[in-house]
Amino acid sequence: MNVTPKAVCIISGGMDSALSAKIAKDEGYEIIALHFNYGQRTQKKELESFRKITKTLDAIESYEIDLDFFEQIGASALTDKSIEVPTGGIEEGVPVTYVPFRNGIFLSIATAIAEKHGAQALYIGVVEEDSSGYPDCRENYIKQMERAINLGTKDETNLEIKMPLVAMSKAEIVAEALKRNVPLQFTWSCYKNEDVACGVCDSCRLRLKGFTKAGVKDPIEYADSLTAED
Amino acid sequence: MNVTPKAVCIISGGMDSALSAKIAKDEGYEIIALHFNYGQRTQKKELESFRKITKTLDAIESYEIDLDFFEQIGASALTDKSIEVPTGGIEEGVPVTYVPFRNGIFLSIATAIAEKHGAQALYIGVVEEDSSGYPDCRENYIKQMERAINLGTKDETNLEIKMPLVAMSKAEIVAEALKRNVPLQFTWSCYKNEDVACGVCDSCRLRLKGFTKAGVKDPIEYADSLTAED
Repeated sequence: MNVTPKAVCIISGGMDSALSAKIAKDEGYEIIALHFNYGQRTQKKELESFRKITKTLDAIESYEIDLDFFEQIGASALTDKSIEVPTGGIEEGVPVTYVPFRNGIFLSIATAIAEKHGAQALYIGVVEEDSSGYPDCRENYIKQMERAINLGTKDETNLEIKMPLVAMSKAEIVAEALKRNVPLQFTWSCYKNEDVACGVCDSCRLRLKGFTKAGVKDPIEYADSLTAED
Repeated sequence: MNVTPKAVCIISGGMDSALSAKIAKDEGYEIIALHFNYGQRTQKKELESFRKITKTLDAIESYEIDLDFFEQIGASALTDKSIEVPTGGIEEGVPVTYVPFRNGIFLSIATAIAEKHGAQALYIGVVEEDSSGYPDCRENYIKQMERAINLGTKDETNLEIKMPLVAMSKAEIVAEALKRNVPLQFTWSCYKNEDVACGVCDSCRLRLKGFTKAGVKDPIEYADSLTAED
């Protein structure tokens, strides 16, 4: 019996995870779409983006998981409204938008879902080099996590964590997304706003830089795109 | 400056995690108590036990985290009420009470809390040999998870995962808990009931076997303790 393999795809609503999930689809997996509402500032908008993206993937299952405890923990500008989102440009070191071990938590929950459905792969859209410098986006970490996951689940559960974007630049991501018909107009990256992207938070800056370097216009609207430069 | 080191202790309300947290306290850590409500059958009773145990530890922080999504995932007799909790005795293999990657999820959230507070250690009361055979209780797995965690968090975050009970038998756990004045009367192990422990689920059987072998009477009440044997 030949069964189509399944992949749990973590889809935030941003550009990277949308491409990552599209690659899973193109590689022949049936998609189990997974989104987290974790009290982040743009939660509503990201959920909307997730739903639109998931529709284009013909996902066989879709999980929208509420993680209210992130606000209880706080310790990040994304989940604690009393900490400002920086808009002055990307700085060295781990920024205040870092949410402690977010990807560790996301991958662990994704593992539980994958184990339930007998999935073979987890797709996560982490980017290491051309990124904000979050420690839980490092390839090294994800590889180690994969080993841990396979030791901590049933013997018949064998999961590969795929991170097809980890070594890509933002410009390469834009180009690859266009090539694969990823609906970039549905994606949302801004850390701050839910109506019009601010253009100046780290996430908007990285995204805009990618489009500029790829020589393509970003289909979404910005409040202040002129200030974003490399 | 000499600062007392901090440990995040995962405390379920059961005997094992109560002893594990007491060992952390005895080893000189300040305790950050952590409990999860994950829609398990005996959630209310376990939370009550957690609070009583935590009080005896003079915890500097206490987190009660709601994880409603475990019911959304299901796939376990503990979180899906349509799957019966077995009462016929412990069998070979991974039982239906296994909750997919539960300890992976718990450890990941514990890591986020530890990183926030600058804690040095995580204590978890896993038992490998004398247990139900859950894959996420294996020493091997936890060691690998520790490596992953330290790669996926900030460079200044260095966490040791301590599992002082991993190689102990249930009888040794009972004896050690008594020696250290762990309030066993407050602990709850039964998978099924919240009023009087059933005595026949795997968790009651393991607990009762421990007391019997240690030659001590369990201070909690059982509905049917006579059926539980080694």
